[in-house]
Amino acid sequence: MKIVKAAELNMKDFHQRRVKLEKTKEKIVEIVELVKHKGDAALIELTARFDKVELKSIQVTQQEIDEAVARVPQNVKEALTTCVENIRKFHRTQWNNEPEFRGEGMELGRVFVPLDSVGVYVPGGKANYPSTVMMASIPAKSAGVKTIIVCTPPDKDGKVSDVVLAAAHMCGISHIFKVGGAQAIAAMAYGTQTVPKVQKIVGPGSMYVVAAKELVRNDVGVDFMAGPSEIIVIADDSANPVFVAADMLAQAEHDEEALVVAITDHESLAKKIQEEVMRQLEEVPKKVIASKSLEKYGHIVIVKDMDEAMHITNEIAPEHLSLNVRSPRKLLEKVRNAGSVFLGDYSAVAAGDYCTGPNHILPTGGSARTISGLSVDDFFKKIYYQNVSKEELRKLSKTVITMAHVEGLDAHALSVERRLEKSDKGHPPEKTDGKPKEK
Amino acid sequence: MKIVKAAELNMKDFHQRRVKLEKTKEKIVEIVELVKHKGDAALIELTARFDKVELKSIQVTQQEIDEAVARVPQNVKEALTTCVENIRKFHRTQWNNEPEFRGEGMELGRVFVPLDSVGVYVPGGKANYPSTVMMASIPAKSAGVKTIIVCTPPDKDGKVSDVVLAAAHMCGISHIFKVGGAQAIAAMAYGTQTVPKVQKIVGPGSMYVVAAKELVRNDVGVDFMAGPSEIIVIADDSANPVFVAADMLAQAEHDEEALVVAITDHESLAKKIQEEVMRQLEEVPKKVIASKSLEKYGHIVIVKDMDEAMHITNEIAPEHLSLNVRSPRKLLEKVRNAGSVFLGDYSAVAAGDYCTGPNHILPTGGSARTISGLSVDDFFKKIYYQNVSKEELRKLSKTVITMAHVEGLDAHALSVERRLEKSDKGHPPEKTDGKPKEK
Repeated sequence: MKIVKAAELNMKDFHQRRVKLEKTKEKIVEIVELVKHKGDAALIELTARFDKVELKSIQVTQQEIDEAVARVPQNVKEALTTCVENIRKFHRTQWNNEPEFRGEGMELGRVFVPLDSVGVYVPGGKANYPSTVMMASIPAKSAGVKTIIVCTPPDKDGKVSDVVLAAAHMCGISHIFKVGGAQAIAAMAYGTQTVPKVQKIVGPGSMYVVAAKELVRNDVGVDFMAGPSEIIVIADDSANPVFVAADMLAQAEHDEEALVVAITDHESLAKKIQEEVMRQLEEVPKKVIASKSLEKYGHIVIVKDMDEAMHITNEIAPEHLSLNVRSPRKLLEKVRNAGSVFLGDYSAVAAGDYCTGPNHILPTGGSARTISGLSVDDFFKKIYYQNVSKEELRKLSKTVITMAHVEGLDAHALSVERRLEKSDKGHPPEKTDGKPKEK
Repeated sequence: MKIVKAAELNMKDFHQRRVKLEKTKEKIVEIVELVKHKGDAALIELTARFDKVELKSIQVTQQEIDEAVARVPQNVKEALTTCVENIRKFHRTQWNNEPEFRGEGMELGRVFVPLDSVGVYVPGGKANYPSTVMMASIPAKSAGVKTIIVCTPPDKDGKVSDVVLAAAHMCGISHIFKVGGAQAIAAMAYGTQTVPKVQKIVGPGSMYVVAAKELVRNDVGVDFMAGPSEIIVIADDSANPVFVAADMLAQAEHDEEALVVAITDHESLAKKIQEEVMRQLEEVPKKVIASKSLEKYGHIVIVKDMDEAMHITNEIAPEHLSLNVRSPRKLLEKVRNAGSVFLGDYSAVAAGDYCTGPNHILPTGGSARTISGLSVDDFFKKIYYQNVSKEELRKLSKTVITMAHVEGLDAHALSVERRLEKSDKGHPPEKTDGKPKEK
């Protein structure tokens, strides 16, 4: 991890981080096609090949779920419950309708319709990610999605971890499938005998999963292409280097490719942060991973002021942004590109990862410039509607007819003219009172 | 156009309509690369090749805009004004913030940040589409996007039509570029000496444009892949076959590939609609195009009841849905998949195309199952933030630490533990009062 002046920073190092998936896509085309055409048989064959396990059944049985829930220790159950409650409480505040616009002779608006079905991909195999289950499924449930399924790779005994099953159970999900990787994405995109086809697939995953989402995204909705984790911590002289270093390491332990940056306007703090990171690194069990990430993408950047810090931050558009400064609210106003922002000393990113409420499935690789973190909004369609009275149509007719002729679309003009002709041939008179048919 | 019973309907005919872009993508890779590497020189070369015109300058000058605005006839100016006002009025009602969630020791929420820059693609060459300018740019403006540019192909004299320039002018856009096709998309995605790189590209276009959007969509935001127009009209015995037929023809004149369907529970009405379509077809200047669309995708479907009509409609997920029935509001409640819904006899789709207010850039090809029509929401990022007090972090610490250990992320646990250690080494005491740093 190096200390650099802002002027020495090579922004290309950051901008070129996005994973190039072309080669991975080529490799998995065959997998996707196999699942598409052979269904369950392909899933069993591919799970044997990649997960080294012969599945007896693809779907987790209710008995397996019940037993897993029973086995989960009480403290973990309590932790899951707190997470679920807090995430649910917060996501319920997210917008899901808006007022109708009523003009004199028009009613206009949008109806918010939840998706019918959503598939959640939960990484697994070596580690367990119950938090992914919660973060992906709770906003879908809040939106009103009826069918939510989970796909997650089995371990070498053909099992899904107890805590993942318990988290799914607490989120009200009972359809869980022991399939991982590109084959899971293909199964949810096209359906097999056992795995239902869904309308949208969400959740993070390996580069095979991400590449598979890219391959199928014309046939099914997908959230976004999540890459390695990222954090920028902006620190002024009020910041505690112990906390800054701790958040940096909590990000670095995720992935050798994780981006870990601190930005400060105090050179002496930069040194302290560096020392703290090195000191704390010794206590991190995943030291090997964290060291690699720090070596590759670890930066402590010295800036002349907070404006420069914000400029660099908005250029990088990090997944997580921690504002360890005296007036974090003021700095928040200058954030233009970031996934999720953590204000002040005690908004530990790790707390947000699990249980403060906001979502942790966030845009990476610079995509925060245009994309938002997963939310209830991602599980709605907003369908426009309009109810126009005859009188209003008459008022607008000149505009429509003029525009239609300008665009060379005469049948468009005719469709209005015919409605306003004196005799509405063949039409029952009670429909021509000039008002919308009903309110 | 055929009359069929619901049971005879082959849904595959509808589901397979989505344009396969693989071959088109292969063809235009070279174009995109050329623009990426040669910038303006490539744009001039490609415009000469495809639009048969030697551009003197790529950007439309202010003088050209002023002269165009002056030349536009008064009635067209008035029509444009009405469109702009109505579209703006409606889009301003669209949601753009939500309340903050305040717990005892937490403040959570999302800030809504408009995109920095948006590129609008406006089809052109043979026809003029001022309505596209308005529908794509007004929601962006409403969201607060500062930089909006337009790319549109020039005609054979190297000019952009007066009415398109006037519409752009009225929408507050002054950066207009005479570039069309895949090269325009590449220019906006990567930037050239003249055309600025934007954060998101919106607007419909030919299959080359759509394919180019697919090619660049990992490097720039795009709206969605719009295909040929679609309409379903649901008609009960209260419907006027003259109006139904007129709306069908207004859709059919768009494109030989347009989907034009009427669904009714009255066999006699089906016949009347068919007769009306044939009669009115004779009066449509774009009869050749409309006939081909009707021949290929024209259907009048006879159903046993409105539930069956809605079932078929939701399966097809049409771009436009017209409810020509006695109680359209009731039927609206059953719509799950559609882009925009038109209620009753007088909500002519053509009026919605121009000036009632809702957007006309809508999902097609079945993508209305998961995607919504263009709106203000498409021009915002929603950035999560959280401000957690020390006390609240202490309360949540057991949950975070338990979850972190379950997921094997010990540095996550440490990042919380270190914040709650008795002595906050090196940290000024006034920051440890247990409250968020500021409200």
